[in-house]
Amino acid sequence: MAFSFQLQKKCLHTQARVGTWSTPHGLVETPRFMPVGTLATVKGLTPAQLETTGAQMILANTYHLHLQPGETIIEAAGGLHEFMGWNGPILTDSGGFQVFSLSELRKIREIGVTFRSPRDGRIIELTPERSIHIQNALGADVIMAFDECPPGNADYDTVAAATDRTYRWLERCIKAHQRPHDQALFGIVQGGIYPKLRSDAVSALIPLDLPGYAIGGVSVGEEPALVRDIVKLTTPLLPVSKPRYLMGVGTYKEMVMAIASGIDLFDCVIPTRFGRHGTALVAGERWNLKNAQFREDFTPLDPECPCYTCQTFSRAYLNHLVRSQEMLGYILLSLHNVTELVRFTQRIREAILKDRFTQEFGHWL
Amino acid sequence: MAFSFQLQKKCLHTQARVGTWSTPHGLVETPRFMPVGTLATVKGLTPAQLETTGAQMILANTYHLHLQPGETIIEAAGGLHEFMGWNGPILTDSGGFQVFSLSELRKIREIGVTFRSPRDGRIIELTPERSIHIQNALGADVIMAFDECPPGNADYDTVAAATDRTYRWLERCIKAHQRPHDQALFGIVQGGIYPKLRSDAVSALIPLDLPGYAIGGVSVGEEPALVRDIVKLTTPLLPVSKPRYLMGVGTYKEMVMAIASGIDLFDCVIPTRFGRHGTALVAGERWNLKNAQFREDFTPLDPECPCYTCQTFSRAYLNHLVRSQEMLGYILLSLHNVTELVRFTQRIREAILKDRFTQEFGHWL
Ligand SMILES: [Zn+2]
Ligand SMILES: [Zn+2]
Repeated sequence: MAFSFQLQKKCLHTQARVGTWSTPHGLVETPRFMPVGTLATVKGLTPAQLETTGAQMILANTYHLHLQPGETIIEAAGGLHEFMGWNGPILTDSGGFQVFSLSELRKIREIGVTFRSPRDGRIIELTPERSIHIQNALGADVIMAFDECPPGNADYDTVAAATDRTYRWLERCIKAHQRPHDQALFGIVQGGIYPKLRSDAVSALIPLDLPGYAIGGVSVGEEPALVRDIVKLTTPLLPVSKPRYLMGVGTYKEMVMAIASGIDLFDCVIPTRFGRHGTALVAGERWNLKNAQFREDFTPLDPECPCYTCQTFSRAYLNHLVRSQEMLGYILLSLHNVTELVRFTQRIREAILKDRFTQEFGHWL
Repeated sequence: MAFSFQLQKKCLHTQARVGTWSTPHGLVETPRFMPVGTLATVKGLTPAQLETTGAQMILANTYHLHLQPGETIIEAAGGLHEFMGWNGPILTDSGGFQVFSLSELRKIREIGVTFRSPRDGRIIELTPERSIHIQNALGADVIMAFDECPPGNADYDTVAAATDRTYRWLERCIKAHQRPHDQALFGIVQGGIYPKLRSDAVSALIPLDLPGYAIGGVSVGEEPALVRDIVKLTTPLLPVSKPRYLMGVGTYKEMVMAIASGIDLFDCVIPTRFGRHGTALVAGERWNLKNAQFREDFTPLDPECPCYTCQTFSRAYLNHLVRSQEMLGYILLSLHNVTELVRFTQRIREAILKDRFTQEFGHWL
């Protein structure tokens, strides 16, 4: 079997859990944060640098890669791993989220979604079959079902209809999937902020016995407290023996709360986006490295961080680079930020293993 | 002695030579190309990446570092090496070239130059003493005399006056220099395109017995053929036992011609500037990686290049990154380009050692 998920440990006080997930391109130790490489590059980092962050699985975006360079080129290159020089596990999203974010440009029908390419204006149709076809060509270890993502403020009936359609589309995705032996297709739980829709969605998914499940349609504009409630309610309903992925979430607090509910995997663009804006994630805070307080601060960014940035440079140097708008500043901060979030989930993992999760991370709950 | 220059080999047919130069931060094997790290960063590269390029000595700019972050901060950090995390040899220019390029902003007097800071509008005075004071604070292994650089089209009398003043300023630089034990002060030969002024300048410099000499005021707008003539005429007049540095030159052809005249060291911003524009230096040519011809070219950028870029990625991936304006594209091309120019001078070095310089590189002459 190319995929197997071993549950190693369960927290005594919460739903938190530790797992080891085997994929065709290596192990993923959960819980774990996954950095995002939208266009087959985690912005600013070489694969060699990325490896030093402790990242195991990374993301890439089907929608963006379809537009540029196109899946045909990536397939001809030998797949995404070969193309981008990353030999670890990769997950591709389905393109659904991006297509549904282009609200003015799209038209949704039962068959799929049509939209105008923001690149060259041509009409593109994305269907469940097309999304899976593209993801089969890209060749990531994990691929995602093509789902309908209604906005965070959508009413019950709209969300109910989208959730039903997501299920019908999932059935089509499963049928279209040509590489189940080496690509794990995850189902996505939709249902917005409505507990009944979420639990109905999970009930419908379970009999399909998919290799993993994601919770989608969170962090799309609704209240953070609602996100937490939905994750808390939905996650424990999912099969214990399969990896669980909370899509698009990657702040400290949200991750701790989701892990306490039984989530294993996270992704977020925050660490590299912050890096490009001169912001560092340090000890749970956001620091703007441009601030004058760092001008003559010759201490490391985070003395406890093992990353190259923290081991080599001072806050004063990072301040200088950011003030000078030097590329190296964005690189070094992105490297630190990715390391920081991966390491945060890694530390949670170790705490769960030692039965110390609530002692060490309870203040986030 | 912190500095010693050992001549290892002389070409039988040209003035080309191989040397090993010992500095407080390590060896420099000449001839060698030096990448430019204007603001204490070779744009886009970490010091660890820079080390893999084979670069030994790198440059930083006194003028730019004086404006941001200021030499006081760098001195407080423990000097430039410590500040930027580069433990190899560093050379700082004097700031003269940059100040004289700001033609509308400056006022030249015997005492020095005043100009308005492009950063905050305040009036700054740069004198020979001030330049050396700043360079002593920065702490590079090699520092440059503060010279007057007339434009490439200046007439004989203007250049003669500037050359005389450069000599008087050099005497003041020598007097002001506080760290001759661990910072080598190079004199700069000016004289424009006028052979007599160049040879007079060299004659005046020789009795000062400086630890090294630079040829300045070339590649400032004059005809390439004139640059070559001046280098060919001037270089052999310089003391054989001291390193010779041709400032601001770093194209394949110019370097081969200058090496044939006896030059040891080069610097140029081309490799990183080209990298940021999606251009690669390959086998003596300039390739625009954005070109459609590379879209489905899955071969390495340069199959013979040992750099990380060429060892890991295809032209198709680089094309994708450049088209997507991804930072990683600029990083990987800069890494390759710096490696390429350092390796080019390294290959010339090996050819001279094997008495094969004219056979292998004669077609450039
Ligand atoms: Zn760090
Ligand atoms: Zn290369």
